[in-house]
Amino acid sequence: MDPLAYWIGFNRVRGIGPARLRALLDAFGTIDAAWLAPEDALRHVGLDRRSVSSLLEARRGLDLPAELARIQRAGVRALTWDDPAYPQFLLTINDPPPVLYVLGELRLEDAWAVAVVGTRTASVYGREAARVLASDLARAGVTIVSGLARGIDAQAHRAALDAGGRTVAVLGSGVDIIYPWENRKLAEEIAGRGALVSEYGLGTKPEASNFPPRNRIISGLSRGVIVVEAGDQSGALITADFAAEQGREVFAVPGGIFQRGSRGTNRLIRDGAQPVLSANDVLEVLNMTAVAEHVEAQMLLPSDATEALLMEQLSDDPAHVDEVGRAVALPIATVSSTLALMELKGLVRQVGGMKYVRAREAGPLYRVD
Amino acid sequence: MDPLAYWIGFNRVRGIGPARLRALLDAFGTIDAAWLAPEDALRHVGLDRRSVSSLLEARRGLDLPAELARIQRAGVRALTWDDPAYPQFLLTINDPPPVLYVLGELRLEDAWAVAVVGTRTASVYGREAARVLASDLARAGVTIVSGLARGIDAQAHRAALDAGGRTVAVLGSGVDIIYPWENRKLAEEIAGRGALVSEYGLGTKPEASNFPPRNRIISGLSRGVIVVEAGDQSGALITADFAAEQGREVFAVPGGIFQRGSRGTNRLIRDGAQPVLSANDVLEVLNMTAVAEHVEAQMLLPSDATEALLMEQLSDDPAHVDEVGRAVALPIATVSSTLALMELKGLVRQVGGMKYVRAREAGPLYRVD
Repeated sequence: MDPLAYWIGFNRVRGIGPARLRALLDAFGTIDAAWLAPEDALRHVGLDRRSVSSLLEARRGLDLPAELARIQRAGVRALTWDDPAYPQFLLTINDPPPVLYVLGELRLEDAWAVAVVGTRTASVYGREAARVLASDLARAGVTIVSGLARGIDAQAHRAALDAGGRTVAVLGSGVDIIYPWENRKLAEEIAGRGALVSEYGLGTKPEASNFPPRNRIISGLSRGVIVVEAGDQSGALITADFAAEQGREVFAVPGGIFQRGSRGTNRLIRDGAQPVLSANDVLEVLNMTAVAEHVEAQMLLPSDATEALLMEQLSDDPAHVDEVGRAVALPIATVSSTLALMELKGLVRQVGGMKYVRAREAGPLYRVD
Repeated sequence: MDPLAYWIGFNRVRGIGPARLRALLDAFGTIDAAWLAPEDALRHVGLDRRSVSSLLEARRGLDLPAELARIQRAGVRALTWDDPAYPQFLLTINDPPPVLYVLGELRLEDAWAVAVVGTRTASVYGREAARVLASDLARAGVTIVSGLARGIDAQAHRAALDAGGRTVAVLGSGVDIIYPWENRKLAEEIAGRGALVSEYGLGTKPEASNFPPRNRIISGLSRGVIVVEAGDQSGALITADFAAEQGREVFAVPGGIFQRGSRGTNRLIRDGAQPVLSANDVLEVLNMTAVAEHVEAQMLLPSDATEALLMEQLSDDPAHVDEVGRAVALPIATVSSTLALMELKGLVRQVGGMKYVRAREAGPLYRVD
């Protein structure tokens, strides 16, 4: 069975999150071995009784092939920690989701992402600030990450799309369950020009308890988080907390001291967040004023997971297509056609006899210096 | 002649400011000796040719007794560096004005002052923020310092008065020339419940070049400067610069990023100023949350310059009223009645035979710990 099935299986087990799954992988070596481990071995490596019984129940109850098929039918990609297409910057947080369901496409350039978040009950001022900032950042080549909520979030996604930029929505439900319903059209556009992502399996309802953990992914995918407008209790403040914990820059848009919606942001600034007067403030603090150039330079990097995989296999030492294909476990036809495209881009060079070398040393994937 | 006359004389000499006057005092020992020094001695101590000729011209042209009489007629006090009633905290700046003309009364408690300044073209938001902050600070026992300009300044003075607090206006003209004219009624009230102060002699017109140096006195008198609203070019930003140079805390009120009047304040915050969401933010940063108690405790300190002078003459060693009167060069009647009042306050004690001692060791004047 495709090992992905086991990742998805674990993801359905209540009580086994990133930390326990990491421990199981360390103990059993592979996801297959972890999933198939006998009960006493699970206990032996220190998994608590409750998690063991959840896991055993899931093993018996889950139809993994059906889960895989459902994902495929939905046109969704499930990225796991060991997938080179998994957003590498998200791996730098403490508890990256073991599986990230993606509807749409995450690209390498989405590593230059900034989150734009805020209250659902946005004021006219908040909406306009979200629009201007998201729009200017998107035009500068920054991917706008947000939570598809009403108010500031929706405005940020919309502005990024209108500016011709990329945007990623992180959901608190399965990527096939759009909430709120009024944003379904927006979600469709996002899937077409960015991605809807979630750590929750398909069909997961938007339960309230899903949203706080969801916020760690919004900040985890981003270089910085801009809180545009937030009352005292806004969930955006949770995202700001995650951002600070994760070492991401926290930004806030100042506002009038008598405006409810600016209480949270003004307080963030008082407590040390960077005030944002314009998109430039964000680009400067993040050292991203040259994102547009970075993005251009990066066209010379692999542009999807297959290319990245092949790139990893290649070096200055000529490698035969068959050999590369075996190493990456992909059909030779795919390998050949991808390498041909990569040669056109100047990434690889055919040195004769179906043998390829890297055209140059590529920078590390998904990283911004 | 009263040495004050020479201070006032120097203050009328174009080209002799705080630095040159300090040098002259260092060279000649007393203000009298400096004023009366022969031309070659002036040159000898390094005074430049131009300043020497200005000084000589002033000596010939000024009618010092008439200047003194004019000040007295106007009910104005002229405080000099060596006057114990000179605001001691203002002496901590680089270039404190050698003479400070005061219409009204500066009190010891005015050492707990905060400046509230901003644009002349204030918005409804700016006015309201100035009102709320000045009012809350005044109620907490803080003296509000500002510049009597239209807009934020006037609003700050007005709010302090309405709150029953104290307020000091620093002018760019003589204290007998109120500018702008529309604030004359406000100025009258300020003189009654605080003070109008200026480094410029009586009759000095509000020339544009007077205002930037005036701003250093606003910040110099204050523990911190709050810029409430300021466009890109507002004079309030000059006051903020002086405050930073003088080691005073710079505060700014955040506002909407599309508001012209909040551009200056939001930038100040971006560049490191403390954002002010409420008066409490100011009190906390300045460690002044206990100002009300300080002020109460300070009622046990001399409450005006005469009391301060007398206090300085007294010790545990009983001193006769005549002796004290000679030392401070005040009429015996004034000394007697003041000492009687001070005894009621518990500051001094009559030990019999018209002899007084201090009731207790007083803290240093005008200082906040």
